[in-house]
Amino acid sequence: MTLDATLARIDSDLPQALDRLMALLRIPSISTDPAYKADCDTAADWLVSDLASIGIAAEKRPTPGHPMVVGHVDGDGPHVLFYGHYDVQPVDPLNLWDRDPFDPAIEETPKGRVIRARGASDDKGQLMTFVEACRAWKEVNGSLPCKITFFFEGEEESGSPSLIPFLNENAKELKADIALICDTGLFESKTPSIMTQLRGLCGEEITLTGATKDLHSGMFGGAGQNPIRVLAKILGNLHDDNGRIQVPDFYDGVPELDPEIKAQWDGLNFDHASFLGDVGLSKPAGEQDRTALEMLWSRPTAEINGIIGGYTGDGFKTVLPAQARAKVSFRLVGQQDPHAIRDNFRAWVQAQLPEDVTAEFHAHGASPASQMATDHPAFEQSRAVLGAEWGKEAAFTGCGGSIPVAGYFKSILGMDTMLVGWAKDDDQIHSPNEKYDVESFHKGIRSWARILDAIS
Amino acid sequence: MTLDATLARIDSDLPQALDRLMALLRIPSISTDPAYKADCDTAADWLVSDLASIGIAAEKRPTPGHPMVVGHVDGDGPHVLFYGHYDVQPVDPLNLWDRDPFDPAIEETPKGRVIRARGASDDKGQLMTFVEACRAWKEVNGSLPCKITFFFEGEEESGSPSLIPFLNENAKELKADIALICDTGLFESKTPSIMTQLRGLCGEEITLTGATKDLHSGMFGGAGQNPIRVLAKILGNLHDDNGRIQVPDFYDGVPELDPEIKAQWDGLNFDHASFLGDVGLSKPAGEQDRTALEMLWSRPTAEINGIIGGYTGDGFKTVLPAQARAKVSFRLVGQQDPHAIRDNFRAWVQAQLPEDVTAEFHAHGASPASQMATDHPAFEQSRAVLGAEWGKEAAFTGCGGSIPVAGYFKSILGMDTMLVGWAKDDDQIHSPNEKYDVESFHKGIRSWARILDAIS
Repeated sequence: MTLDATLARIDSDLPQALDRLMALLRIPSISTDPAYKADCDTAADWLVSDLASIGIAAEKRPTPGHPMVVGHVDGDGPHVLFYGHYDVQPVDPLNLWDRDPFDPAIEETPKGRVIRARGASDDKGQLMTFVEACRAWKEVNGSLPCKITFFFEGEEESGSPSLIPFLNENAKELKADIALICDTGLFESKTPSIMTQLRGLCGEEITLTGATKDLHSGMFGGAGQNPIRVLAKILGNLHDDNGRIQVPDFYDGVPELDPEIKAQWDGLNFDHASFLGDVGLSKPAGEQDRTALEMLWSRPTAEINGIIGGYTGDGFKTVLPAQARAKVSFRLVGQQDPHAIRDNFRAWVQAQLPEDVTAEFHAHGASPASQMATDHPAFEQSRAVLGAEWGKEAAFTGCGGSIPVAGYFKSILGMDTMLVGWAKDDDQIHSPNEKYDVESFHKGIRSWARILDAIS
Repeated sequence: MTLDATLARIDSDLPQALDRLMALLRIPSISTDPAYKADCDTAADWLVSDLASIGIAAEKRPTPGHPMVVGHVDGDGPHVLFYGHYDVQPVDPLNLWDRDPFDPAIEETPKGRVIRARGASDDKGQLMTFVEACRAWKEVNGSLPCKITFFFEGEEESGSPSLIPFLNENAKELKADIALICDTGLFESKTPSIMTQLRGLCGEEITLTGATKDLHSGMFGGAGQNPIRVLAKILGNLHDDNGRIQVPDFYDGVPELDPEIKAQWDGLNFDHASFLGDVGLSKPAGEQDRTALEMLWSRPTAEINGIIGGYTGDGFKTVLPAQARAKVSFRLVGQQDPHAIRDNFRAWVQAQLPEDVTAEFHAHGASPASQMATDHPAFEQSRAVLGAEWGKEAAFTGCGGSIPVAGYFKSILGMDTMLVGWAKDDDQIHSPNEKYDVESFHKGIRSWARILDAIS
């Protein structure tokens, strides 16, 4: 039994696998900060060398930013591309960490053993679950069960500026039957989940201008127009009392949920009281005729992500400011067109402007929603075997956010992506004291062995 | 002819009067900045010595902050208290000044000669118009025409922390028949005006809190409540489409304008197109069934003076913030009760909060409107003589702002105040390149001589 032997090898090799992860975690590969450029390079070298130790030929490939790592292993069966990223988020505020973020340690906690370090979960720990599964498989069976391309990026946490050009320039080399990405989590920290729909995003910044300079409300108050007042009035109209978004034609292209997916989601028995309760909330705040999971995964949103105007320091200043500004974003689903939504939003704002107030708009990105074509057999094969590892049947789930690389794989390489990962909700990614459960790491490696076995 | 001789003396002494003002302007008496504490003291000494040079016994009186200057001259007729302040606003941004703010100079401009310096208009230049009128009167006539108390403050630009205790402790000494304050301006820079109504102010800060921490809109967007959205919705309801304020009982105590005052105001032919046009606006933005002057002087307002929440830096962050904050103020008129308005506003906000959002409130001052009792004969006597100086009949006007000291004179000393001054709209008080027209200074001195003559 190839799989059983591989799983046994994974179990016995866990201490060494943790040691290897620790070594990678010690490299402070913060991609957004130029001070860590050499460390990003070191992390790429470390991965090349770690793959080499399994007998996988990989190389560091330069970009105008941090390097990519690409490796190939030939084999029978389907050709999969595995993607992960070796760069990490900055660590500030450093004073909120209980230990040096780049001096990883295994800590005993009331919820079990955790690996504490920046990148432990996002994405070094997750990335290594796949690498370690390949190592065990290779060591037990002498070769890997299918053809695999390894593709590691070093700029995911800083906007992936080199990714699109790199995919375009190396399309032929990187195209596989399906991409696997390990950068997501377990549903409610316990149910294995394969994300098959991700929302898109349209970001927009509005600046309203009234007078040519800040005015004193003692002199102008009452007669002078106040752009904060206008901005509040307009943004206050963004949702109706039932949470429905009021921008014209906003819901064009929003599909009703596929009944089969809806049945799977209902089967998850999502505990929204606990999900919201963890952050001090209780009532789902979206469209009132939708379930909380729909609000999070399959319904579009309009959010005010930032607002500023006038005097915001300590004390008080009776100013009528010349300008007020807001950042607004829309999470998109189905066939919603981010460009049409931007245009409609701008026209809707313009139509509400009173005399003497003008609006300037600035676009901040636009990506449509991604719906994975789950007809590749790997999806059902993987779903079928994950239950055995986690004791809970796996589900096709949605994601409230965007994972742009999955969209690029589709649009540039014509390749579908299967997103599966082992992170937990309390991993504190992007925050101080990031951790990854040893259970996530261990069962994650075993899960990849099961998936490789199932799809080969 | 006492008055004619005094006016002639004022004309001939103008160069020396300007020299004296220059000396006072050279003292950087910025009251809010501890670095200038000694300079505030020097300015007080200078005033004591300048009054002594006219034969007026004055002294510097300590307070926990900067000193007051108090002087008395006995005389027949009514007892007037003259109030001015010797402290000035900070000068930053210094790079926007065309010269050292404390190196005053007379500059020729297309609109005439101006005195350029911090404090030239607010309030050293204005204050000195009264002192110089007294000097000329004394020099021509050997004594002053009435009993006068001089009262100069050094903390007006930093919130007057010592004023109320000082008035309380020295009430008997300071109480006069009427107070004169020279800290206001000409209506539209040309019509002499005696301000007889000032609006009150109620400042309030609201902080709305949703989740216990900032959330990521990819994870929580749609289901998680967003306090910016709630704040915009509430503040967007502050005015109806006609500019009427929606807080319950807000208009309690708002009187209709006295027909006699309304006739005077109509006679001013206020050019609101030019007033608003100077700052890039065109349409009076208050209650649409009111004139622009009513909006500015006799109608209450609700203004959002500051708002902040979420990410407001460059670029974009898809955050659902835990908090959003706004500073709101109300300009009050007539008998509006600032405390009742604060309570009603808070209840009105509370009533609109959805589940999961709480509000905290912080009070920032509350002062009722001031309506001067114009039955003291000085008001009509002064109004009657100012036309001769300025070539335009003087009017009783309103003021959109507050001049707290006038309220304290009434509430603590039981003394009415006559507010009259010679500043122009383009004096740039509190801003770089502050100036005071030599015309304001010269005719201001002459105006005080006329007023002293009329009321004695």
